Amino acid sequence: MPGPVQSIERAAAILRLLARGSGPLGVGEISESLGLAKATAHGILRTLLDVGFVEQDKATGKYRLGAAFVHLDSSYLDVNELRSRSINWADALAARSGETVRIGVPLESSVLVVHHVFRPDDSMQTLDVDSRLPPHATALGKVLLAYDADLAGRVQRSGLTSFTRRTITTPGKLAQALAAVRDAGWAAETGESVPGEASIAAPIRAHGGLVVGAIGISGAMERICDASGRPTRRQVDTVVDAARSVSRDITSSK
Amino acid sequence: MPGPVQSIERAAAILRLLARGSGPLGVGEISESLGLAKATAHGILRTLLDVGFVEQDKATGKYRLGAAFVHLDSSYLDVNELRSRSINWADALAARSGETVRIGVPLESSVLVVHHVFRPDDSMQTLDVDSRLPPHATALGKVLLAYDADLAGRVQRSGLTSFTRRTITTPGKLAQALAAVRDAGWAAETGESVPGEASIAAPIRAHGGLVVGAIGISGAMERICDASGRPTRRQVDTVVDAARSVSRDITSSK
Repeated sequence: MPGPVQSIERAAAILRLLARGSGPLGVGEISESLGLAKATAHGILRTLLDVGFVEQDKATGKYRLGAAFVHLDSSYLDVNELRSRSINWADALAARSGETVRIGVPLESSVLVVHHVFRPDDSMQTLDVDSRLPPHATALGKVLLAYDADLAGRVQRSGLTSFTRRTITTPGKLAQALAAVRDAGWAAETGESVPGEASIAAPIRAHGGLVVGAIGISGAMERICDASGRPTRRQVDTVVDAARSVSRDITSSK
Repeated sequence: MPGPVQSIERAAAILRLLARGSGPLGVGEISESLGLAKATAHGILRTLLDVGFVEQDKATGKYRLGAAFVHLDSSYLDVNELRSRSINWADALAARSGETVRIGVPLESSVLVVHHVFRPDDSMQTLDVDSRLPPHATALGKVLLAYDADLAGRVQRSGLTSFTRRTITTPGKLAQALAAVRDAGWAAETGESVPGEASIAAPIRAHGGLVVGAIGISGAMERICDASGRPTRRQVDTVVDAARSVSRDITSSK
């Protein structure tokens, strides 16, 4: 089995071969060109397929550069796929937590809600899908900011609007809060967006640990937090478990 | 140490992070975004630097996508660099073999000579740099054809011109000859381009085994070949050794 560094070199060489080409190449042609055992080339191609860098022609089985590789700057996991991978886990999270569940992705300098599961009670609720949330004042947003230096830069430049007395409005405090999110692996917000409401969120990770979205719950502070005003361990664990399940779903079967 | 597949996934995630960005990212930002140990992120970045997929800002030490990655279809090892890496080995090969040395790269459907060392004697010789050779009738060309399905396709389509009685002119025979080259790891040509002249060549490999050129000798058949008309073991070994030395130089220090 080749080592990690060698594997990356070989993956890069395969991508160059495919980029050169006038047409798709079979695993035999690729392994012969690079002097690799066929099984080794096949394992690398399998991984490159998983991350969307190559595509396989269904009829011939040959490989070509993937659309996701050619347009690397666009998200390779589109919103529809993220939603379809997470829909069951989001339902389960709503049932377990008893709260509203939202899934968010970064869009420009805000959080776009791409999926929303109502709180499992009979209250009137409006669908939040396609609405935009302020990243610095929501748990979903803090997760996205913590792992995306680009989004964090845009948000810092666009200014930190105050929504309540508790909203984080200075770059220094936000940076501190984001470092804490990275340490913990989850984010919370307590009355920073709407007085009396709190939220908890955790990252959805694709291949290689890339954060592609966040999933979380939100609701009344007295249900989400304990007497000291901190999110309860039980709710945090429920959210983190759901985020891990979605991540596993994305990385195992794409 | 992460496994090969995981390393490729992480390398892909790093490339996506950098592609997203409005600016270069430091190793700390990258490792935090992906939830990697800093040393792990550093090792992957080092490899991505080696293969030209990322570049490092000299002043800040931060990383951005490499030009070679953005223009993946162009050769990442430019001719000047190939020449500078091979110049000493080419001189040594001429001295050891007593023959003319040429280095070739594919260009359209021919072999472009990018470096030429005269045979070490007092005979009149003309510089071949920038001249083009027919791939199917030269050892340099056979090496390039053997490892480059794209070039092989172009050459097959453009037709196999006959230069001597011995030139390979049918696609079937050429395919057979190229398979033999891949098995042996070197190519020869005996009187197929010019009557009474022979040549031997071997592949120059960059990172991951990617063949980026060929180096070889050419000269009178009676000096290059034995009594049975086959290239002598000594000359073959000398050429293969020189090709390996150039490959090592390219992959160790780029």
